[in-house]
Amino acid sequence: MTLHETAQHSKKASIYLASKDENSKNSALETIAQQLDSRREEIKAANSTDIQRSKSENLAQPLLKRLLFDDNKIDQTIAGIKDLVTLKDPVGKTLLSTELDTGLELYKISCPIGVIGVIFESRPDALVQIATLCLKSGNALLLKGGSEAMETNRILADIIYNASLEASMPEGWLYLLETRSEVKEMLSLDDSIDLIIPRGSNEFVKYIMDNSNIPVLGHADGICHLYIDKEADTEMAVNLTIDSKVQSVAVCNALETLLVHEDIAEIFLPAVRKRLDESGVKITGCDKTARIIECEAADDNTWKNEYLDYKLSIKVVSSLEEAVDHINCYGSGHTDSIVTNNGHAAGIFMDLVDSGNVFWNASTRFSDGFVYGFGAEVGISTNKIHARGPVGLEGLLIYKYKLIGRGHVRADYTGGSKRYTHNPINKPYPHND
Amino acid sequence: MTLHETAQHSKKASIYLASKDENSKNSALETIAQQLDSRREEIKAANSTDIQRSKSENLAQPLLKRLLFDDNKIDQTIAGIKDLVTLKDPVGKTLLSTELDTGLELYKISCPIGVIGVIFESRPDALVQIATLCLKSGNALLLKGGSEAMETNRILADIIYNASLEASMPEGWLYLLETRSEVKEMLSLDDSIDLIIPRGSNEFVKYIMDNSNIPVLGHADGICHLYIDKEADTEMAVNLTIDSKVQSVAVCNALETLLVHEDIAEIFLPAVRKRLDESGVKITGCDKTARIIECEAADDNTWKNEYLDYKLSIKVVSSLEEAVDHINCYGSGHTDSIVTNNGHAAGIFMDLVDSGNVFWNASTRFSDGFVYGFGAEVGISTNKIHARGPVGLEGLLIYKYKLIGRGHVRADYTGGSKRYTHNPINKPYPHND
Repeated sequence: MTLHETAQHSKKASIYLASKDENSKNSALETIAQQLDSRREEIKAANSTDIQRSKSENLAQPLLKRLLFDDNKIDQTIAGIKDLVTLKDPVGKTLLSTELDTGLELYKISCPIGVIGVIFESRPDALVQIATLCLKSGNALLLKGGSEAMETNRILADIIYNASLEASMPEGWLYLLETRSEVKEMLSLDDSIDLIIPRGSNEFVKYIMDNSNIPVLGHADGICHLYIDKEADTEMAVNLTIDSKVQSVAVCNALETLLVHEDIAEIFLPAVRKRLDESGVKITGCDKTARIIECEAADDNTWKNEYLDYKLSIKVVSSLEEAVDHINCYGSGHTDSIVTNNGHAAGIFMDLVDSGNVFWNASTRFSDGFVYGFGAEVGISTNKIHARGPVGLEGLLIYKYKLIGRGHVRADYTGGSKRYTHNPINKPYPHND
Repeated sequence: MTLHETAQHSKKASIYLASKDENSKNSALETIAQQLDSRREEIKAANSTDIQRSKSENLAQPLLKRLLFDDNKIDQTIAGIKDLVTLKDPVGKTLLSTELDTGLELYKISCPIGVIGVIFESRPDALVQIATLCLKSGNALLLKGGSEAMETNRILADIIYNASLEASMPEGWLYLLETRSEVKEMLSLDDSIDLIIPRGSNEFVKYIMDNSNIPVLGHADGICHLYIDKEADTEMAVNLTIDSKVQSVAVCNALETLLVHEDIAEIFLPAVRKRLDESGVKITGCDKTARIIECEAADDNTWKNEYLDYKLSIKVVSSLEEAVDHINCYGSGHTDSIVTNNGHAAGIFMDLVDSGNVFWNASTRFSDGFVYGFGAEVGISTNKIHARGPVGLEGLLIYKYKLIGRGHVRADYTGGSKRYTHNPINKPYPHND
């Protein structure tokens, strides 16, 4: 099969997967969990092959760590699937119901998007997570994993697909793509793929966004800001800076630029400098910062840096408005936080900063689907349409309108003999007649 | 200003427009309505110039009719704005609220998308409708209208913009673009325009979709189907065919392909043929159709036709499944309807047909924002993400997460000293502290 034929097959499967009920989808998830458990020796053997090969190819240590899929990871993955089973079926919910006229009833019903293309790097657990999220939400899936995890991905996809077919899910709902050239081709299949979710580096996500007409859900940059207002509590401000910057440095919601109001800079900067030094964080600062603490000199590109490292940009600003303007100009719309005791200033900041996550007196590190209580996470989106911020299952859904009549024709309403009533019905869609 | 500078200016304005409260936006809408009323002579004079010029340029009669902006249209437009004032402010709604831990509260709040680019043809009333919808939903707007309506668009944009500034809306929230080259440039401004809404012909919408990385909301084709099931009531089926096809032929939800179950074809086809003849509808049919009624012979391209004319494609199918497959293969995901007395068949049809609007015993002509009771309409979308089917004000909205803490750091939750509570709060976001 060509990739286009594969995608057409996925599209067809998606139609039947969309109409599967909650029980059969949950039973498929349970079968998958069982088989991951019973076939764990095969999984570990495949993973061991990937790790040996990657070591011989000198894969970097952090990537090797992400590649590891041992008993502990298998247990976590199975626990994740069991959690997913307990979540309510997001498909088939009645979002609106209106009587347009006697016997003419309109229902807005949640449904899957269709075919999702997911391209991810390294971590094999992402494969299981994404595939089971798609199954629960009734979406067909074209998956492309990193080549370093090839053997692990292959056995995991095999287990998931076969277990789901045993539990009567439709043939063709899941395909694992294995070559790089297929990714490029996938980006052009806008007649069969409805949404692409890339999980990987900035450059990788930007490439996808720039080279496809298919909608992309996700984020490229995570240039997050913390603004220390003139009315901030200094100790809190220092603690939030440290947590936002170093609690985990290589993640998208880690702090990259600290903005400091000039009225508090002389007290705050030396205090935060001390703690940043202790954590080994190097500072690049504006002229005003450099007058107060020792640092590298900032240039025009400083404010566009996403370090993902023990490095921090610091800028002194003269007002809340300057902080907001800076963030809206240089930020990536991901996560930005203000530290202040002034609720009015916090309100302005959270209204005017145009980001998916805007915080008051909290670490930027809190923007996360699990932290927010969404359970399963599709990813974090900096899109301005469909889904923004941490995206749970609902990011994989859309809706359709179902209208039930008794032979109603529109001519009766334009001629004036009948009028729309538009009465709310307040009852769910009558499934299976 | 270059167009890029203009768009950057819009982006800045959008930040301030997003934070305007319900009263000030409604007061701006009322001022606009008043000034459209008091400056109607200027509007009519400008429109008369456009009509004279268009006549001399031999603009087609239907387009001339759409161009007309007389007292009647002005009155309708003003009434539309007054209706919009009565709609609840869609911005600032609390969509979710969760206590993550004591003193750490998460709110999901509806907000405008940002900067909308709208490109439309002909009708000047569309300009007023779109601009006031954007204002109500707090979105900045870059508008490009058809050149045939240049003078009318100019005076309308001038009235709307100046009236809104009098009512303290931010400078730069509305720009009217006037040259064709600006459209092309607009499509590349993905750093400042968040969503494009094109209103015009198929080719025009397809061009926009294929030439921009900015998300596009709308529809190109409207290839709508009516499927006459074997258990259909023949009289109802004939009436629904006629209404779907001829009640208005040049609209996106008009019928283009009729699918007929073979068990009912010999009774139904002669009956519908008679009524289609009376309405002057020409038929192109498959072999099986041609054996029962006289018609043009269909070829491979027949099922892809969006006639927008007194023409209809007819195909005889041997099952409900074949009808569904045909629609999912050739349809445009717009509006498709089944005629049957069998509720189970109707349920399958509405579940499996992958379209924004799926109907049972109702004319395809009902898919419309006003008919659905949405009041104002942004357009009809065949997208699979964000907004589908007739789109009201909510299509111009997204959300942001606001998190309020007291200096909470994430390290406390990964170290194990604290745990997330994830308790629902069930209260709205505490606006203005």
